[in-house]
Amino acid sequence: MADCDIGLIGLAVMGQNLVLNMADHGFNVAVFNRTTSKVDEFVNGSAKGKSITGCHTVEDFVKNLKRPRRAMIMVKAGPAVDAVINELVPLLEEGDIIIDGGNSYYMDTERRLKELGEKGLLFSGTGVSGGEEGARFGPSMMPGGAPDAWPHLKPILQSIAAKVGPNNDIPCCDWIGQGGSGHYVKMVHNGIEYGDMQLICEAYSLLKHAAGLTNDELHDVFEEWNTGDLDSFLIEITRDIFTVKDPDTGNDLVDMVLDKAGQKGTGKWTSQLALDLGVPTTLVTEAVFARCLSSQKDARVRASKILKGPEGAIEEFRKGLDRKKFIEEVRHALYASKVVSYAQGFVQLEAAAAEHGWELKYGDIAMLWRGGCIIRAKFLQRIKDAFDREPQLENLLLDPYFHDVVESHQAAWRDVVATAAKLGVPVPAFSTALAYYDGYRSATLPANLLQSQRDYFGAHTYERTDKEGTFHSDWLRMRREPKA
Amino acid sequence: MADCDIGLIGLAVMGQNLVLNMADHGFNVAVFNRTTSKVDEFVNGSAKGKSITGCHTVEDFVKNLKRPRRAMIMVKAGPAVDAVINELVPLLEEGDIIIDGGNSYYMDTERRLKELGEKGLLFSGTGVSGGEEGARFGPSMMPGGAPDAWPHLKPILQSIAAKVGPNNDIPCCDWIGQGGSGHYVKMVHNGIEYGDMQLICEAYSLLKHAAGLTNDELHDVFEEWNTGDLDSFLIEITRDIFTVKDPDTGNDLVDMVLDKAGQKGTGKWTSQLALDLGVPTTLVTEAVFARCLSSQKDARVRASKILKGPEGAIEEFRKGLDRKKFIEEVRHALYASKVVSYAQGFVQLEAAAAEHGWELKYGDIAMLWRGGCIIRAKFLQRIKDAFDREPQLENLLLDPYFHDVVESHQAAWRDVVATAAKLGVPVPAFSTALAYYDGYRSATLPANLLQSQRDYFGAHTYERTDKEGTFHSDWLRMRREPKA
Repeated sequence: MADCDIGLIGLAVMGQNLVLNMADHGFNVAVFNRTTSKVDEFVNGSAKGKSITGCHTVEDFVKNLKRPRRAMIMVKAGPAVDAVINELVPLLEEGDIIIDGGNSYYMDTERRLKELGEKGLLFSGTGVSGGEEGARFGPSMMPGGAPDAWPHLKPILQSIAAKVGPNNDIPCCDWIGQGGSGHYVKMVHNGIEYGDMQLICEAYSLLKHAAGLTNDELHDVFEEWNTGDLDSFLIEITRDIFTVKDPDTGNDLVDMVLDKAGQKGTGKWTSQLALDLGVPTTLVTEAVFARCLSSQKDARVRASKILKGPEGAIEEFRKGLDRKKFIEEVRHALYASKVVSYAQGFVQLEAAAAEHGWELKYGDIAMLWRGGCIIRAKFLQRIKDAFDREPQLENLLLDPYFHDVVESHQAAWRDVVATAAKLGVPVPAFSTALAYYDGYRSATLPANLLQSQRDYFGAHTYERTDKEGTFHSDWLRMRREPKA
Repeated sequence: MADCDIGLIGLAVMGQNLVLNMADHGFNVAVFNRTTSKVDEFVNGSAKGKSITGCHTVEDFVKNLKRPRRAMIMVKAGPAVDAVINELVPLLEEGDIIIDGGNSYYMDTERRLKELGEKGLLFSGTGVSGGEEGARFGPSMMPGGAPDAWPHLKPILQSIAAKVGPNNDIPCCDWIGQGGSGHYVKMVHNGIEYGDMQLICEAYSLLKHAAGLTNDELHDVFEEWNTGDLDSFLIEITRDIFTVKDPDTGNDLVDMVLDKAGQKGTGKWTSQLALDLGVPTTLVTEAVFARCLSSQKDARVRASKILKGPEGAIEEFRKGLDRKKFIEEVRHALYASKVVSYAQGFVQLEAAAAEHGWELKYGDIAMLWRGGCIIRAKFLQRIKDAFDREPQLENLLLDPYFHDVVESHQAAWRDVVATAAKLGVPVPAFSTALAYYDGYRSATLPANLLQSQRDYFGAHTYERTDKEGTFHSDWLRMRREPKA
């Protein structure tokens, strides 16, 4: 008894795989699940012969843990997390640790941290990314919360995490910061994941619908892209997807998949919180809205019968098409847009950190995402390098490397956005990335007119370019009298 | 005593003007303000000689009201509203009515409605639009809440509202529906206002920065636009703005106004709630984010020194420019984008109504916005006509008139978006409107790839095009083995 290094509650696939991963790294793990048959199945199945102890009650689970006890929860975000916490609390003692490894909303994490702190318990909201494979063989982990918990979590979490670096020894897991920062960073990771996936879809859409590439050709394009700047898990699996056949029909499976995207909320939260912070995380937001529009399949099918696009434009485009050149232009548009998306994501992290008093280490966060998680990519090393060069970097676009990328890619990027507009292929993420780039590099924007309007109709006042202060003018009285 | 038809608490400009408007229409009005010197100033100032009774205490205020008492609150949205309500409640009797005329968050309105209902009081969350001028001479009003309140509010609110129609006798005020629907509709109105203003700014930006028009020329353009489909309050005041001189410098005042846009939150709420509903209100959202980016003036000035646009593109563009043609193209882009924005806004209203069980009359809502408010425009009659033709219209773009507009305007719209991309002029609202149009009219979107990715890395499952159900595939095992 009391010889387990850690315990885990919630034996869905992610939970099971984390436990197996821990056991593989030499830890004794206690497990519990509300439906206890799952415990038995697991212990007699894939956990058999490993240092894993199945428990049928929370009491038994707690008794098996060494002190300070480490109890990790892997259940659906929301009330289920509170339910498990409420069962655990009376059984725990001061200094024990609860880790929530689900996709909890960071404000829930802040609340739980406070409530448990008042009871003398240490709470950590830990973002875990990488899907089932990551959980089993090395996830990316973003622990935050009570700093005193970290020394007790570090040996376990860092040993099961993915490893990166030239010697494959840098764990994709490090302390994020106080409060709900771990879950916040994980949420922004997920938002960026939405963006990355939408960008790939737009490239796919252009190459397929505009340029007419087959799935075999698309495979070759993504295979090549995966050897360069875009080298990443998502490009890699996209390459693979084009090779998968549907056993039922013999067709390519991707063509049998319905174009209705699902979502679980973390992308949406990223956008809603960006709006609260007043920072323009436009690309993630367009990606979320693109999923919403895709899910309205029936409405789109009805609309497609009524609303026409630019007729004959695609046929005309293909006639003069230099395919190789166009593919390269799309790659440039994708990479430049991706740079913008990460720039926006890190700006949001900086704004959130300022609001909550978190001391985030941005370069380290990039390295946590370098392996294990869904957005893992060679590219993240570039972000680490940028923050190493300038830890206070206010926007990735100002770093010499990224600045070079967007400037050297912009001609192709602009052509692709223009072409898509003329051909009627929707590229909301490419477009909003470009509009952000052009807005951000504009010393003057047309908001002077907007402020004039607001002052005209609502006396909202305005600032001036030539002196400090706020001003109001009686525009109606000062205007030139219009002609009758 | 007890001879006032209505009372109003909160004597900022909007409140004062509503009271004067009520008095002009023959109503006796009691007024109260926490800082009571404001009451005296008002009663001895602009209210002098009118049927307006100043009160120094809430008790006195309530005593002056006929039964059922009608107490309207015009204070800052948030805790101040609750504070006033809490002062009123002990003094009121069953059947009395409280009207909140501020920009309250609709969920606060739903909460207050419930709390006051339990006390036997009738509560109405009433959106009021039109700024100071509107309040004084005829606002647009969107009352919702307890249906039993409406018969008591109708004579007053409809008589002070703006009037439209061929005989100028249709009041821009009618019952919206239950719960927080009045404030929700007002919020969407404000969101659409954000969109309209951003669209005008993008047109301005293109005409000024790309085509090089002077303020005099811009005045002429907006003057002409105001005689056609775009005829509206915002186009009209934009026209005027270009004629206003700065008394200090002699320059055009619009050029002295700093390009940092402010915002008060209703646009943001519209976007956040669209995200919650899963409906793509992309244009309002881009408009909100554009305000955010504009407000980061210092960051933009720094970035402008580092990040380059497409060099020489604008000079080259101007050489071959047919100005008249370009102005007309921009007008087309603006009108088509505006149609998309309203289409999105009404889709959001339909989704909100479905979620909350509100029975909104969309054509009537368009008519409430036809006059009095900031987005008032001839165009809104077109929306009324569309819902008259088809009360269940699922998207304005499917109505024959709007469908004709977007189709006949699309060539110019596409050209403008493409030109802006190539010239480096940010047009996030024009672009997102076009992307929405192209996405909405697409029977197939690339989300099949996205669902394939989600199923590959997270076993999120997918639907198929050829049969019902949800499916999962082991993509990793089924893929063609990549080359080493």
